[in-house]
Amino acid sequence: MATSKTGAGVTRPDARPDTRIESDTMGQIAVPADRLWGAQTQRSLANFRIGDERMPEPLIRAFGLQKKASALTNMKLGVLDEALGEAIASAADEVIAGLLSEHFPLVVWQTGSGTQTNMNANEVIANRANELLGGKRGEKKPVHPNDHVNASQSSNDSFPTAMHIAAATQIVTRLLPALRSLNEVLLIKSAAFERIVKIGRTHLQDATPLTLGQEFSGYAAQVMYGVARIESALPRLYRLAQGGTAVGTGLNAPEGFDTGFAAEVAQMTGLPFVTAPNKFEALAAHDAIVEMSGALNTLAVSLMKIANDIRLLGSGPRSGLGELHLPENEPGSSIMPGKVNPTQAEAMTMVCAQVMGNHTAITVAGMSGHLELNVFKPVLIYNLLQSVRLLADAADSFADNCVAGIEANEDRIEQLVEQSLMLVTALAPHIGYDKAAAVAKKAHSDGTTLKQAALQLGYVSAEEFDRWVVPGRMIAPTKALEQ
Amino acid sequence: MATSKTGAGVTRPDARPDTRIESDTMGQIAVPADRLWGAQTQRSLANFRIGDERMPEPLIRAFGLQKKASALTNMKLGVLDEALGEAIASAADEVIAGLLSEHFPLVVWQTGSGTQTNMNANEVIANRANELLGGKRGEKKPVHPNDHVNASQSSNDSFPTAMHIAAATQIVTRLLPALRSLNEVLLIKSAAFERIVKIGRTHLQDATPLTLGQEFSGYAAQVMYGVARIESALPRLYRLAQGGTAVGTGLNAPEGFDTGFAAEVAQMTGLPFVTAPNKFEALAAHDAIVEMSGALNTLAVSLMKIANDIRLLGSGPRSGLGELHLPENEPGSSIMPGKVNPTQAEAMTMVCAQVMGNHTAITVAGMSGHLELNVFKPVLIYNLLQSVRLLADAADSFADNCVAGIEANEDRIEQLVEQSLMLVTALAPHIGYDKAAAVAKKAHSDGTTLKQAALQLGYVSAEEFDRWVVPGRMIAPTKALEQ
Amino acid sequence: MATSKTGAGVTRPDARPDTRIESDTMGQIAVPADRLWGAQTQRSLANFRIGDERMPEPLIRAFGLQKKASALTNMKLGVLDEALGEAIASAADEVIAGLLSEHFPLVVWQTGSGTQTNMNANEVIANRANELLGGKRGEKKPVHPNDHVNASQSSNDSFPTAMHIAAATQIVTRLLPALRSLNEVLLIKSAAFERIVKIGRTHLQDATPLTLGQEFSGYAAQVMYGVARIESALPRLYRLAQGGTAVGTGLNAPEGFDTGFAAEVAQMTGLPFVTAPNKFEALAAHDAIVEMSGALNTLAVSLMKIANDIRLLGSGPRSGLGELHLPENEPGSSIMPGKVNPTQAEAMTMVCAQVMGNHTAITVAGMSGHLELNVFKPVLIYNLLQSVRLLADAADSFADNCVAGIEANEDRIEQLVEQSLMLVTALAPHIGYDKAAAVAKKAHSDGTTLKQAALQLGYVSAEEFDRWVVPGRMIAPTKALEQ
Amino acid sequence: MATSKTGAGVTRPDARPDTRIESDTMGQIAVPADRLWGAQTQRSLANFRIGDERMPEPLIRAFGLQKKASALTNMKLGVLDEALGEAIASAADEVIAGLLSEHFPLVVWQTGSGTQTNMNANEVIANRANELLGGKRGEKKPVHPNDHVNASQSSNDSFPTAMHIAAATQIVTRLLPALRSLNEVLLIKSAAFERIVKIGRTHLQDATPLTLGQEFSGYAAQVMYGVARIESALPRLYRLAQGGTAVGTGLNAPEGFDTGFAAEVAQMTGLPFVTAPNKFEALAAHDAIVEMSGALNTLAVSLMKIANDIRLLGSGPRSGLGELHLPENEPGSSIMPGKVNPTQAEAMTMVCAQVMGNHTAITVAGMSGHLELNVFKPVLIYNLLQSVRLLADAADSFADNCVAGIEANEDRIEQLVEQSLMLVTALAPHIGYDKAAAVAKKAHSDGTTLKQAALQLGYVSAEEFDRWVVPGRMIAPTKALEQ
Repeated sequence: MATSKTGAGVTRPDARPDTRIESDTMGQIAVPADRLWGAQTQRSLANFRIGDERMPEPLIRAFGLQKKASALTNMKLGVLDEALGEAIASAADEVIAGLLSEHFPLVVWQTGSGTQTNMNANEVIANRANELLGGKRGEKKPVHPNDHVNASQSSNDSFPTAMHIAAATQIVTRLLPALRSLNEVLLIKSAAFERIVKIGRTHLQDATPLTLGQEFSGYAAQVMYGVARIESALPRLYRLAQGGTAVGTGLNAPEGFDTGFAAEVAQMTGLPFVTAPNKFEALAAHDAIVEMSGALNTLAVSLMKIANDIRLLGSGPRSGLGELHLPENEPGSSIMPGKVNPTQAEAMTMVCAQVMGNHTAITVAGMSGHLELNVFKPVLIYNLLQSVRLLADAADSFADNCVAGIEANEDRIEQLVEQSLMLVTALAPHIGYDKAAAVAKKAHSDGTTLKQAALQLGYVSAEEFDRWVVPGRMIAPTKALEQ
Repeated sequence: MATSKTGAGVTRPDARPDTRIESDTMGQIAVPADRLWGAQTQRSLANFRIGDERMPEPLIRAFGLQKKASALTNMKLGVLDEALGEAIASAADEVIAGLLSEHFPLVVWQTGSGTQTNMNANEVIANRANELLGGKRGEKKPVHPNDHVNASQSSNDSFPTAMHIAAATQIVTRLLPALRSLNEVLLIKSAAFERIVKIGRTHLQDATPLTLGQEFSGYAAQVMYGVARIESALPRLYRLAQGGTAVGTGLNAPEGFDTGFAAEVAQMTGLPFVTAPNKFEALAAHDAIVEMSGALNTLAVSLMKIANDIRLLGSGPRSGLGELHLPENEPGSSIMPGKVNPTQAEAMTMVCAQVMGNHTAITVAGMSGHLELNVFKPVLIYNLLQSVRLLADAADSFADNCVAGIEANEDRIEQLVEQSLMLVTALAPHIGYDKAAAVAKKAHSDGTTLKQAALQLGYVSAEEFDRWVVPGRMIAPTKALEQ
Repeated sequence: MATSKTGAGVTRPDARPDTRIESDTMGQIAVPADRLWGAQTQRSLANFRIGDERMPEPLIRAFGLQKKASALTNMKLGVLDEALGEAIASAADEVIAGLLSEHFPLVVWQTGSGTQTNMNANEVIANRANELLGGKRGEKKPVHPNDHVNASQSSNDSFPTAMHIAAATQIVTRLLPALRSLNEVLLIKSAAFERIVKIGRTHLQDATPLTLGQEFSGYAAQVMYGVARIESALPRLYRLAQGGTAVGTGLNAPEGFDTGFAAEVAQMTGLPFVTAPNKFEALAAHDAIVEMSGALNTLAVSLMKIANDIRLLGSGPRSGLGELHLPENEPGSSIMPGKVNPTQAEAMTMVCAQVMGNHTAITVAGMSGHLELNVFKPVLIYNLLQSVRLLADAADSFADNCVAGIEANEDRIEQLVEQSLMLVTALAPHIGYDKAAAVAKKAHSDGTTLKQAALQLGYVSAEEFDRWVVPGRMIAPTKALEQ
Repeated sequence: MATSKTGAGVTRPDARPDTRIESDTMGQIAVPADRLWGAQTQRSLANFRIGDERMPEPLIRAFGLQKKASALTNMKLGVLDEALGEAIASAADEVIAGLLSEHFPLVVWQTGSGTQTNMNANEVIANRANELLGGKRGEKKPVHPNDHVNASQSSNDSFPTAMHIAAATQIVTRLLPALRSLNEVLLIKSAAFERIVKIGRTHLQDATPLTLGQEFSGYAAQVMYGVARIESALPRLYRLAQGGTAVGTGLNAPEGFDTGFAAEVAQMTGLPFVTAPNKFEALAAHDAIVEMSGALNTLAVSLMKIANDIRLLGSGPRSGLGELHLPENEPGSSIMPGKVNPTQAEAMTMVCAQVMGNHTAITVAGMSGHLELNVFKPVLIYNLLQSVRLLADAADSFADNCVAGIEANEDRIEQLVEQSLMLVTALAPHIGYDKAAAVAKKAHSDGTTLKQAALQLGYVSAEEFDRWVVPGRMIAPTKALEQ
């Protein structure tokens, strides 16, 4: 049987004076004395010196919830002594509150089941509970990390449960409120701009007019639909794997543990968590994570478009489109004095690119499970939580530091719409498409106004032109205005 | 003003005897006499010699629906003469029936608004309608492609409308039934295998047992959830852009055109299409396409996992896992006589890779719109319809040619579960995690059975071991079986 | 042993009168009498009714090359009778010439090794060779599809060999020339525009000036680097798997087959194909395909940027940037008369989105091989060849129908650069960054020229301003112009 | 003119006692007294509260190099006073050494040009240089952040220069050595396993034999080619944008600054950096980053395949393939005692998924530049450096903690190859493909050995069978062994 050089046989338990000895089924190992973690966490630190991306804080806190809910359920079902259960719950409360976060040192790039982080939680909570009960760190008694903290559980159902709790919680408490705020600011701007008639642009070419308010209403709709998309994916995220234990059968968990656990979590979080109807699916696949990432990917597509538009409309100040004034938040250039840039749009679009990339990572990870377990769990939740956090923060920043301060450059807007050739479209219902095209082409090649061209071609009278070609009456279906 | 070498000035209208002359606002151009298309279609053929991917057939048929519904609505609203409208509707019926598909020669790689395919539809239907009315091809009368067939419409709302009609129809009539069939076959297998206890595998390593029926129930759940995911994205696909015309305002469309049109389409298709609440969003963004592609991407993730598992369980015949017999549909090797391969799983997983790729294409295309119009419409619908078609066909083929014929290799399954060391997990609640681990490690290093190791270590009696370690009782939560 | 409903036992060999009976190791099957393919091809048609994407034509032709080179090498090494070998080579020549393409009906979505297409080639060539030798279709003599046409080969080395031949050939003969042409047209424009000083834009905001020729030189450089990137990936595509047979060992191939074969292919194609140094890698992985797709992905990134810029600079005609006139190739709108759109840029950017999507498909497929064989071969080559074809065609179309006809709108360009505030950058080396910023800010808020602001602030004299702020002298490093 | 709520007008300069006042062109702002950064850095902190991903440490250190090389070049060209230049170089040395990293607090999600991080560097170095010269923080004299530290530079050329320096340096000093080590360990194993004949598997099905050493040689080749791929992309990463200043023209930089700068960097790093031949390309596009990411993506594809294979071959211990013993580094399960998992393979494959995701983010960011500047620079370098770091660390961890400790389970390997039916392939050259297939099929359905089946069918004598079917002679081309 092979043993690597970082395996149990090599680790020197006779280590520095500021360590204590912890043990697991592989033997003894020295652990920093001031840390609550145990042997398996320490072994992971030695074996996985990969990157510096620690398990996300919301996941650690979700593990606090998961261990507390497990303890309470175990107590109710009579498989965990009350005294031990209370101590576990108290220690878990400290994890939930973030008080023990420094005791979770592991990186994302570990075992794909997240077992080491589950054991990290078991070890920290056991040591802390033992302290609360007057015991000592490392003794595993009276509270044992596996037999008590992990009672009725496996990493295989605990980790995905913590994934779902962390993701759903962050989405509901951080992302959705941020999106609703952004939607609201966009609606405020849409209302403020509702009478500003401007040129439309399709293919980036001049087209028929619309109001600036209408344009912003489209952005608001995109964000609102984004909220709906996320909400429609939430139900599958509310399904918890807990109770499936090692392979989905629930072996070694008492009957009723799954539903009892879900009820505890639902009560603690105020969110409608339920037990997953099929635990085999819940361990072996993480389609619910992929699905939610797909909703975030769609949102990123929306926000990329909105931010791109806003910086394009704000381009200038003198040689761009110049229809919007964006807030000036900071100097824009280290070499060009006085330059101001659409930096909030840039941060937003970078976030969107990241979310799209994270979605590919999640897709690849999600498809790569084998048989009873998907072992890409840490990379899945790392990417999903990063996407949620970045989208929430960027939505807030973009709303507050950009959209809220946008002002219309009405002079410029009026100038651009008045000179447009595409107002000719208003003539088409009266003189036909082909003649209207001839008017536009003539004005374009002669460099004249549409009216001049139309009169020279003799297709309309001046009075007709003035009656029919009115930008402010070109922003709605015909009869709404004409009848 | 620049004119390219393939522009209007160069095209020779004095062409071959088997052509006729058609014209548009750029001038005259020769068109094959036996084709119904007109000048703009012909110009596109000359200008876009890129690839050979034609606009998908379901999109062309959807354009038939779109033009017919437009004609009917225009007639109702009094903006289209009844005689012309009837002729347009009749010609459109031929497009819907696929009778005119050879008259739609354009490729995907054209203008990003799909204007040329919209004009292709306008031209074909106008020419055909004029024939029905006793007129001649190319004369544009009495039916004019723009003024009548395209009345109240723009390419900018017509093309996305056809996109949504085509996608929703294909999904509802092809993909969802195929997925439901696959789900059903998986459930049948799950039921048939419900008493076959087998070894579970996590991390690809031996784990605690489950039944083969439980394993298949996970696959069935994945497919069933896939149906739910697609259904939850459909509502936004049922929203039609029609009525927005050029930039979303509805200019040149009569009031009520949008709702009237949607009602016509809903009636023709039997699907709950409605008019899009915000037309600016519906032209400028295609988030609904991106969203649906995200649902298909999740489905591809599910199917990749299922097909991978099935080929892994069927690996062998003698030196693999060998738990399943897969149907032998064809010789497997040109060099290895008698070899049979999991070819249906391979076709399925290749389809899944394609769908994931298409999702990236759709994401990039979806994010790249500018201002009032997304001009990646053809590539969006090409990829979405390919994904839908491939998933539907592959689901059918996989269900019929693979899953339906799967048989369990029960001898092999029994042998593998009996020799597993992970049955030791059943001891943990009785003797504790650490002692149970010692039993497994001893058996592993000695090459003995678990029972031998457990007895030698003195942790259990033979009677206890036989009572506690029963694979068939390790497939559910504790009390369900023990109490 | 399981047999699916489409397996050998079900197929009815007593079929229609216009069929003949072919057989394989699974039994007999009816084949259309006028087709050259045999039993395995027919079985694949029945078993894989998935999509309508046939194996790409260049791959089929490459199989002609592969079978001919195999026959010649087998003859040289004495393992194939001369008479049979000559007949095989003659039949293969017809495949190379595309004369037998209709006899290759299989779709991409088949077995992942492409065995069925390899057998399709073996069957067609055997039947055709037998005809040439006076034999009959379906008799497999004197030429046997496996024993002679496939002699010394396996699908597992033949299919990847055909993949590399097809890809390299298409890249060298189609894509690289198209890119070199595009580069040349861009360089011609760059030279033509070398004296046109225009405003630069960073962050889409007005910045310091450059010439339009400099701007186009950047595009030309991107394309030229794209050529270099593709060329740097070609060496690994020139390595052929042939000779590895079933698992890379070369079992059943004569020694020297691999090098002899590669030499034949090199001579036939004029390209430096060599035998792969490690055949295990060449069958089990397709990293060379993934790598080349990465080069195409980078090219797509470049072309997306170029096409985006050109349509942005050509936006207008009156209310956009309007610095470029793009060729007017066709009417742009079905509702807006006279509208002309940057359609070539749109086709190009859609192609780029597709190539990026194909790259994801290729990445997923490339990573998913198991042990001795990657079984995503058909989807890999389908996507790579589509990317190559689309990029080549789009580069040609974009060069000919867009770039070649681009003209500068010099009046507009001059107007925009003259009014720019970022000319203030030329003052910074003289009066310092902070004072220069104050000048720009004052001009911006007062709506004046820079000169007016600078004079009012008293930072420079009029003479100094005119000497220092000269757009035409701001387009190069300082001393090049000042000394 | 719009000003956001976080803009200059709101920031309170009369802040806490532990702050000092810094200023920029927007006004004054309070900065923590113990920090070296200035007004623009502080403003960015306020305006971009997005995520917690700081600019990567290697980029910060590369900025040290970039500022030092700029100062030295400016001094040589006579545009920077010697005393100031020396102080700047000394301060930059502290950045290079990582001594000032805590003074670079900005996140990735800021302005897309990275201007704020360039200004962060300018401010920190100016303040530190002034301290070295006896001045005070915040006074901007004698060393001014823009006029001196940033002399001859723009963020637009400085940031991409730092990107290239950071990426190339990390690749050459971290990633390539790690890959070469991994390749070496794989080659050692390949040599150690060169005589172990094992069953091959294609389509996951039993195939003809090869040696375990041959199998590992394929992995080694993949890694070695990965090195070649990265090296072939490096030349374009060695091209530095510096000297292009704001838009690529080099305005305000002295002639010769670009080449002089590149020579300084080449000398400092020992790497062949050169000045970019086309500065417009170097600012406006980051194709070289996309290209390198493509090489890393291909590497990730390779490593995913290798790690997948190794865990599959190591599956078991009793009910999997079981051909390899992987090192046991830690307990594998919180519920299944004694379980050991292929955790290093899991960490590696998670890293690969991340790298593929990062590649999508980089592709999207790379394609999204406008005109003279790509403003996705921070997200590009963040992802590239993460990919480099993770691949390097994971390669080291995988080599040391997994591959180095792999042992062959020779008993199991021998058992699996002996019972394989695909040894029948060795009969095909002697009795033909069809008869050989009949032998395999008979053995398979009867459950006998191949020899028994062959004798019963009368196709070979026992003596012939034993002479022809020898696994150890099936691992190379025919004549190598037979003649």
